[in-house]
Amino acid sequence: MKLILDLDTGIDDALALTYALGHPEAEVIGVTTTFGNETLEQATANTLDLLSLLKQEDIPVFEGAVFPWGTADYQTTDDLHRVHGFNGIGNVSLPKSKRTSESESAVDFFLRAAETYGNELKIVTAGPVTNLAEAIKKDAEVMNKVGRIVIMAGALTIPGNLSPFAEANIYNDPLAAEFVFTSGASFTMVGLDVTLQTMITQKDMEYWTTIQTEAAQDITEMTTYYYTNEYGGGEFGGALHDPLAVEVALNPEILTETLAINLTVETTGPSIGRTIGELARLNQPLKTAVVGLSVDSSQFLERFFTVTSQILANN
Amino acid sequence: MKLILDLDTGIDDALALTYALGHPEAEVIGVTTTFGNETLEQATANTLDLLSLLKQEDIPVFEGAVFPWGTADYQTTDDLHRVHGFNGIGNVSLPKSKRTSESESAVDFFLRAAETYGNELKIVTAGPVTNLAEAIKKDAEVMNKVGRIVIMAGALTIPGNLSPFAEANIYNDPLAAEFVFTSGASFTMVGLDVTLQTMITQKDMEYWTTIQTEAAQDITEMTTYYYTNEYGGGEFGGALHDPLAVEVALNPEILTETLAINLTVETTGPSIGRTIGELARLNQPLKTAVVGLSVDSSQFLERFFTVTSQILANN
Repeated sequence: MKLILDLDTGIDDALALTYALGHPEAEVIGVTTTFGNETLEQATANTLDLLSLLKQEDIPVFEGAVFPWGTADYQTTDDLHRVHGFNGIGNVSLPKSKRTSESESAVDFFLRAAETYGNELKIVTAGPVTNLAEAIKKDAEVMNKVGRIVIMAGALTIPGNLSPFAEANIYNDPLAAEFVFTSGASFTMVGLDVTLQTMITQKDMEYWTTIQTEAAQDITEMTTYYYTNEYGGGEFGGALHDPLAVEVALNPEILTETLAINLTVETTGPSIGRTIGELARLNQPLKTAVVGLSVDSSQFLERFFTVTSQILANN
Repeated sequence: MKLILDLDTGIDDALALTYALGHPEAEVIGVTTTFGNETLEQATANTLDLLSLLKQEDIPVFEGAVFPWGTADYQTTDDLHRVHGFNGIGNVSLPKSKRTSESESAVDFFLRAAETYGNELKIVTAGPVTNLAEAIKKDAEVMNKVGRIVIMAGALTIPGNLSPFAEANIYNDPLAAEFVFTSGASFTMVGLDVTLQTMITQKDMEYWTTIQTEAAQDITEMTTYYYTNEYGGGEFGGALHDPLAVEVALNPEILTETLAINLTVETTGPSIGRTIGELARLNQPLKTAVVGLSVDSSQFLERFFTVTSQILANN
């Protein structure tokens, strides 16, 4: 199937990209970028460098949002640097790509691809949903043709990771998230509820450490930075947030429990960024969100490491 | 099956009691009372009067908690008066019962019944879970023999009704709720997630208004007060919170979607009383809570009005 990844690249974004590029059922037709884990500029550079590292320089990259709705500025935080390093990819120095991004915007690429591929197209957002919100705002009808939209964001049944209420991608643009969640567009939410069921720790690195390619070494190094830092280096490990969203786009049955619900996002106050059911639409028969609540994590982790080991060995 | 109702009587408590007493599969072996919608004293008086109204004066009533854990005082609020009236039962004057409550405490009755009936016993709490917490604290092993504990409390996927975070029963004793939720005891949570799917409005009163008994008139009057006031008298109506918990005890299949999860309760700060998944126990295979997420409300409402119409016609 045709896949677009919308990334704020980010270590787990890098892993999602690696997984999608290696997956036999996915054809990544383009990558869009956004501010989030990093500035837009850095996220785009990281994406281009990763595509070069993985020898996939035919895949176009489209730049999207520079900052969240309602603001004209975006700074990454100490907390994001702690998880993703000062360059978004665990302070690993990748060989620089010679490419640049396309002149077409992320939003226009979304719309063009939706028009071209319709139901065959799946879009995975792994950062703030700003690009998605802008595409829906620009042409909801065309975006409605997309086969599946999977959003890695939010937390419904457990606390957030940027505050007790907010997951980072939502926190980074609550207004855009509220727009998407209440727009009528259908989407699958892959939030912390399920991504925190897909933890990796040091022992998982055994899959990759025997692979003698530069790609394997770089990805292992940044991943080690990530699982060591996301939750403080303990046994808890790091979560495969963004790779799970790719998996759900390709194989929704990996979610063993889901809830169909109409969601909203809190946009003010101490619980800004909270994703929660919208009372006014609770009893509407039509639900626009499917929220992942449980996942077959052992099946997913095995596939993730099998697929990534193969592409890393080939580069 | 043997049923104990733990009530802070309360209009929807009164409806839960009426439903349980009329239900052919339920044998109510006793009612325990707690502070909550009303003071303990008023809740006990309302319970005794309702049992008298429904000619069930052989059912014993056991008094429980006077106030929440960590305090030595409890006052009902304007908000509770708005929903339940100044006497807890919509300002309806019931004929006074001549009975008093038993000398045995609610907690001791829980434990005695758990020991006696074991798996055959179901306990439904419709108020703060203070009595339940005290029983588990006193003898968790004996309480573990109970066949099913159904807690009407909390809100996992939608906002609370006493704050954006807290449902009223949890808000009224967050410490006791936290103790129960993290005690290791198994329970089913019937929270706002599902009870707000069981709304009644004026048209539902047609089931009862043709019944010419005092019981039917009194119950209709207090129910009218309730659905008119709980959500401001609009089309939204009032929720059958406590009756749904009785239904789930008798017929758990009425919940069409549930989530097995380990929960905790926030006990401080602006989100005090929030019920949420506990991160530290997210990936433990054993889950102690089953949370109702969807309900077959039309099936339930039909059964509720069929059963209650019958018992109201006979009294």
